[in-house]
Amino acid sequence: MSGFAEHELSCNGFLGGRVQLWQPVRGYRAGVDPVLLAAAVPARAGEKVLELGCGAGQALLCLASRVPGLALTGVELQPPYAALARRNAAANGQTVDVFEADLSAPPEALKQRQFHHVIANPPYYKAGAHSQSSDGGRQVALGEGTPLTEWIATAARRLAPKGYLHMIQRADRLPDMLAACGGGLGSLEVLPLAPRAGRAAELVILRARKGGRADFRLHAPLILHEGTRHERDGESYRAEIRAVLRDGAALPWPGQSGFPAAQT
Amino acid sequence: MSGFAEHELSCNGFLGGRVQLWQPVRGYRAGVDPVLLAAAVPARAGEKVLELGCGAGQALLCLASRVPGLALTGVELQPPYAALARRNAAANGQTVDVFEADLSAPPEALKQRQFHHVIANPPYYKAGAHSQSSDGGRQVALGEGTPLTEWIATAARRLAPKGYLHMIQRADRLPDMLAACGGGLGSLEVLPLAPRAGRAAELVILRARKGGRADFRLHAPLILHEGTRHERDGESYRAEIRAVLRDGAALPWPGQSGFPAAQT
Repeated sequence: MSGFAEHELSCNGFLGGRVQLWQPVRGYRAGVDPVLLAAAVPARAGEKVLELGCGAGQALLCLASRVPGLALTGVELQPPYAALARRNAAANGQTVDVFEADLSAPPEALKQRQFHHVIANPPYYKAGAHSQSSDGGRQVALGEGTPLTEWIATAARRLAPKGYLHMIQRADRLPDMLAACGGGLGSLEVLPLAPRAGRAAELVILRARKGGRADFRLHAPLILHEGTRHERDGESYRAEIRAVLRDGAALPWPGQSGFPAAQT
Repeated sequence: MSGFAEHELSCNGFLGGRVQLWQPVRGYRAGVDPVLLAAAVPARAGEKVLELGCGAGQALLCLASRVPGLALTGVELQPPYAALARRNAAANGQTVDVFEADLSAPPEALKQRQFHHVIANPPYYKAGAHSQSSDGGRQVALGEGTPLTEWIATAARRLAPKGYLHMIQRADRLPDMLAACGGGLGSLEVLPLAPRAGRAAELVILRARKGGRADFRLHAPLILHEGTRHERDGESYRAEIRAVLRDGAALPWPGQSGFPAAQT
């Protein structure tokens, strides 16, 4: 199909209404994860950003809302979503250069480009579909879709020297993510995202740097919600998470103190 | 050399004096890490425990102090430390069957045994000596000593079905540890040990189970010290850590609720 019909779409606001996103009523709908991903990226005006699997463009547009003057590029396998990403970009006064392509076989025009930042929020496979992945942290053939190794290998190839990869993914895929970080990626950092204090991480954000040589770092978890358990209905996000989700703030990355610029 | 001279040794108490350990005045001296390792192991009376690189026996003897009726075995490359481990066992009313061997080439008698638990506290290499290890989580030839992959492969071979490996190691080696977990190890769990709240983990305890198939889990960090920074001299361990170090308590492993027995 070439696109969604209008009645199949709804428009939702993100970052306190700063970003308006048309999404299909059914099918994949963006949650807070792409917003957190975008907030973790230390991009600066003038830099080039590539999102692998950009969907309707939520992460790119949230990032562009916080950091003006970025050059945005996306790769999206499904043409209806690629069309939505372009439409959403225009609706938010942005431009996203969207390639309709399989990220594991990018078109020549994309292969000739390098980026300061690559971001990705790969699909979360259901538990059971990847149960072998706990066996040794080795990447497994997932049977469907694009293996996580391909996402990371493609990101590594498209990054300029000193460029950053940021990927948000389920915590139980961490061994696979780390094992996939070849291709000159280094200075790996993992920021666990835990729903509440004292709880295991459900998501992680992986940061890697092209050509980085620093030791691996496992940061203190970023706690999303107040309290130690679900105690009431309504919003319970901690203040610094609310600032990210509602005010478009940058995510407080631990030990962050000025990022050396990427080169391209 | 066949052993340490008496004047080269001192005797130190651990677990509030429950374990007395002769150690060389110079050279490798045990700290709190083997105590934390031992406290993390859910061993039960009658089970067989193997420590790789047992040194003077600190971890094994701390574990035996908490859990009576274990059958203790150690592998130690350096004969003077192997002799110390035997002496320390006797001084604490225990027996440790110590093999003087390279753990990557264990003697036939050891290869014919299986264990409910394997524990290890491999040497912490200096930063710089393993800087390549941040490149992709791949095991690297460390130039000296036994690679981490060998420690984990040997552990996997010696574990009975459903048996547990526990390893304590610097957090920056986590990618290498996870990548090394083949050989039928699964149900990987990582417990980060952070010096203070909000700080990155400096150590991790890896738990893996022979034949385990559960998803990887990244637990909430265990915080060692009170406060967010070093504010005063003297002991600042949090109460649950003091209970481990001074009273011989088990380490509060997250979500712990009865361990299915290992089989041998």
